[in-house]
Amino acid sequence: MSILVVGSVALDTIETASGRREEVLGGSAMYFSVAASYFDQVFLVGVVGTDFPEEGFHLLERHGVDLDGLQQEQGKTFRWTTRYHLDMNHRDTLDTQLNVFESFSPRIPEKYTTATHLFLANIHPSLQLEVLSQVTDPGIVISDTMNLWIENTPDELEEVIAKTDIFLLSDSEARQWTEEPNLLRAAKQLLRRGPAHLIIKKGEHGALLVNEDGAFFAPGYPLENIVDPTGAGDVFAGGVVGHLSKLNSMEDADLRQAIIYGSTLASFNVESFGLDRLSTLTNEDIEKRYGTFRDLTAFEKN
Amino acid sequence: MSILVVGSVALDTIETASGRREEVLGGSAMYFSVAASYFDQVFLVGVVGTDFPEEGFHLLERHGVDLDGLQQEQGKTFRWTTRYHLDMNHRDTLDTQLNVFESFSPRIPEKYTTATHLFLANIHPSLQLEVLSQVTDPGIVISDTMNLWIENTPDELEEVIAKTDIFLLSDSEARQWTEEPNLLRAAKQLLRRGPAHLIIKKGEHGALLVNEDGAFFAPGYPLENIVDPTGAGDVFAGGVVGHLSKLNSMEDADLRQAIIYGSTLASFNVESFGLDRLSTLTNEDIEKRYGTFRDLTAFEKN
Repeated sequence: MSILVVGSVALDTIETASGRREEVLGGSAMYFSVAASYFDQVFLVGVVGTDFPEEGFHLLERHGVDLDGLQQEQGKTFRWTTRYHLDMNHRDTLDTQLNVFESFSPRIPEKYTTATHLFLANIHPSLQLEVLSQVTDPGIVISDTMNLWIENTPDELEEVIAKTDIFLLSDSEARQWTEEPNLLRAAKQLLRRGPAHLIIKKGEHGALLVNEDGAFFAPGYPLENIVDPTGAGDVFAGGVVGHLSKLNSMEDADLRQAIIYGSTLASFNVESFGLDRLSTLTNEDIEKRYGTFRDLTAFEKN
Repeated sequence: MSILVVGSVALDTIETASGRREEVLGGSAMYFSVAASYFDQVFLVGVVGTDFPEEGFHLLERHGVDLDGLQQEQGKTFRWTTRYHLDMNHRDTLDTQLNVFESFSPRIPEKYTTATHLFLANIHPSLQLEVLSQVTDPGIVISDTMNLWIENTPDELEEVIAKTDIFLLSDSEARQWTEEPNLLRAAKQLLRRGPAHLIIKKGEHGALLVNEDGAFFAPGYPLENIVDPTGAGDVFAGGVVGHLSKLNSMEDADLRQAIIYGSTLASFNVESFGLDRLSTLTNEDIEKRYGTFRDLTAFEKN
């Protein structure tokens, strides 16, 4: 079917143990769109400035992403500068320039309202709610968030989660939001606030799906060379939502496979700076690594 | 076949968010022995003082653990006092009284030397080496360690790992010992120091097996009620070694199942203080939870 994503498009400056890259294509909607494009049609709603490079439009077009909803405004594109710690699990934001993103007001083209899946990337909850008010029949709603909104706009975030089918957040965010140190109890508490499914992202430790059918755990793919973790969460979401949209299913078995596809794409994404690796995948690459996730977790003898 | 374990037997005073228990049965050899006893014959080498409670001997005897190697010396039993943080992932040692354990010199009864598996629990590497020098044909050697020995006695630990078939340690210990932040690279570096298999314990995040066949990941079992994490690592080892000894196999497929049995037993152990839950399991309890690990990780459709 098809996926509508609303989120940020940015130019990132990234420093990791592997090196430094200046003003590479980034942003939650960018990473998500490229990842989801391997599975289904993507409609992108976001904003860039007049300085956004041609190569950015081309990359998205090459992946069949519909850009009618990507507004180009007078001014500069959202910029973000980060430096990762040696362990790659922590990072410091060195600089954030919202630029045209500061006054971003999502406008959803008419044809986008036919999308079967709506992904609300990690943006201000008031923007997420604005999108939900514009789309009368959003289909399956998948939302992401971050600690900033849990701390600063908990009431609006509460409205978002109530209208969400699949809510994504990190383990520390789940604990922070619920003030419950036990992760499973935190998950069950969040499920009572609205969503049918909760996906807890645990970074290098994998991801946990919790719903009324129980729990499913996907490991983090063990990699020897992690070059740049930027966008891993959005790419993971892109794989999850992409697979579910392609199958147009919310069966537990399909959700499990979707999470493995998300983990597969995220594992590729961290192997290079920015979108370098993610944007050059073949379906064969994806299926092959998907298979290695089976080897990584199987313990039944045939 | 049969398992020889050398480690500590202690009386633990434990404080967690769930309450406080004074001088409950504990120590690495105690936890390991009870866990492994569900699978195979266990020979225990350790030391207790004259104050060691009758109930401790009875509990081990009830599990068929052979106590000819459990020395009872003049003086008091090893005592340890700990307090867990609210998240249960961290703890502070409040008091350690080595008592009779301070001058512990392992003596291996003749009949124990027929054991097919030798588990060197987390004790001073010089004691681990002393055991290895006494047992001419130790069969499969499985060793555990901790950050203290990595910091203080790296040379002796190097000798231990060189003589070990399966080495167990935590993810932070693997990174600390190799000074390598990437876990898979750290694992491969440690494999080059001797062992055929490395098992990296990740606490609530599960366990990772790395060997020449590749990697296997076992999730942590999601529990709503974690009462006391004490001994989880030793119980995990007990399940792993118990299953391997019972099958007398080192096949990769059996190692994977052994790790799931270890995870299964560890998940029971943390549900109560001390050995309360672990010591009252039935084989049916174990098999049932083993099955839920399948549900937790399966993503293939039938």
